[in-house]
Amino acid sequence: MRHVSIIGIGAGDPEQVTVQAIRAMNAVDVFFVISKGGDTDDLVALRREILQRYVEGDGYRTVEVVDPPRARSADAHRAVVDDWRQRRADQWERLIGDELADGQRGAFLVWGDPAIYDSTLGVIDDVLARGNVAFEHDVIPGISSVQDLAARHRIGLNQVGGTIRITPGRRLAEQFADGEDVVVMLDAKLAFARIDDPDAEIYWGAYIGSPDQILISGRLADVKDEIVRVRAQARERKGWIFDTYLVRRPAGG
Amino acid sequence: MRHVSIIGIGAGDPEQVTVQAIRAMNAVDVFFVISKGGDTDDLVALRREILQRYVEGDGYRTVEVVDPPRARSADAHRAVVDDWRQRRADQWERLIGDELADGQRGAFLVWGDPAIYDSTLGVIDDVLARGNVAFEHDVIPGISSVQDLAARHRIGLNQVGGTIRITPGRRLAEQFADGEDVVVMLDAKLAFARIDDPDAEIYWGAYIGSPDQILISGRLADVKDEIVRVRAQARERKGWIFDTYLVRRPAGG
Repeated sequence: MRHVSIIGIGAGDPEQVTVQAIRAMNAVDVFFVISKGGDTDDLVALRREILQRYVEGDGYRTVEVVDPPRARSADAHRAVVDDWRQRRADQWERLIGDELADGQRGAFLVWGDPAIYDSTLGVIDDVLARGNVAFEHDVIPGISSVQDLAARHRIGLNQVGGTIRITPGRRLAEQFADGEDVVVMLDAKLAFARIDDPDAEIYWGAYIGSPDQILISGRLADVKDEIVRVRAQARERKGWIFDTYLVRRPAGG
Repeated sequence: MRHVSIIGIGAGDPEQVTVQAIRAMNAVDVFFVISKGGDTDDLVALRREILQRYVEGDGYRTVEVVDPPRARSADAHRAVVDDWRQRRADQWERLIGDELADGQRGAFLVWGDPAIYDSTLGVIDDVLARGNVAFEHDVIPGISSVQDLAARHRIGLNQVGGTIRITPGRRLAEQFADGEDVVVMLDAKLAFARIDDPDAEIYWGAYIGSPDQILISGRLADVKDEIVRVRAQARERKGWIFDTYLVRRPAGG
């Protein structure tokens, strides 16, 4: 039987890898490295650093594949994602079938946590559902950028008795209006800048856990412009940005 | 200057400790172990195992303190919590002031992640706000039980484009009625058993990551009674239970 591990490797700080992930990586014969095509040198180097640092010996292969292109469309979001998943399933089915011999172990390394805004598990389920290639699989959790955001700001994600909500940027306005705290991931459109509540506070971070880490926090009305400016400069300088943030009304506010 | 680290040590599987947490633990002079009084031998043994396994040498002390008792009351939830925090702040202020010399490092070990339904950071903020004892502090994230729940069930916490909500049990009914997925922590009252949606599915786990781990999943209407029964038996047998679960409507459902 083939075996596939989906391994969370943390959000960027190589020290935020777990002992469980290290043990799993050391049992792997083939690492499947999914490149977005536009992957930055930073991320490639970081993934390589994690393997070199934690995997003993060189008894593994790395197979790189470029992700099928994904149409960007605000409409038909669901259909676009489904089509993309289909093409990834085609590709991954071939990968697992062709690159792993019986009894071998393959792995997908996932930034952050495979359970939080990551499509890897969905594609694996699709491949399994087709039934063309048989394999066992297991999942190893990782520290997500949301958790590292909270740790670097030294705050909890929930207030007393409150709910933690993690959501894509396009849902921030609607959800914040409902009266609860919201953590936003995947926000290319600066949804926070359109929140107009004088009580709102924000805890923002970019490249969290990396040497380029930037943290800004304060009353949203006071720091909004600064975040927009710093974010644009950082993105220009590095060529990419990964940021996440919590917006909340302070307790009693 | 004194230094205090708040270190997430994962939800129960000693392998889910990060390299960052191990490094931090190895720099600690004094571990503050907060006992609830009713702490089970299992949890005490597991914490001891983590220290023995990962901390080299014996250059540290452990100071155990019993948490002030917390009134259990559904009413006045906020006031009860505030009073409890106050008494903890008194206690921790003395701990940090009396047990740490200048330049020494103390640490609080937190199950799961300090940012997710944990009061440690709130108490530390209260102690700092009083200004009677000065110290620096940092926070190290850990794998939460919610993440390990998802990993063991091999599922994502969000559906495509959807929101992740983590909430206390008493808020499940209201939030699930709003139409979104809900992850529940801290549910002594089996809130899932009162959800009556024929489409709902549940992913439940207890003692996740430990040798006693129990996982049950399926259509809520089909497995509800089984979970209630298994949960009661496990609690009776072990004397305590820690469980968490995701309730959702399947995509397209």
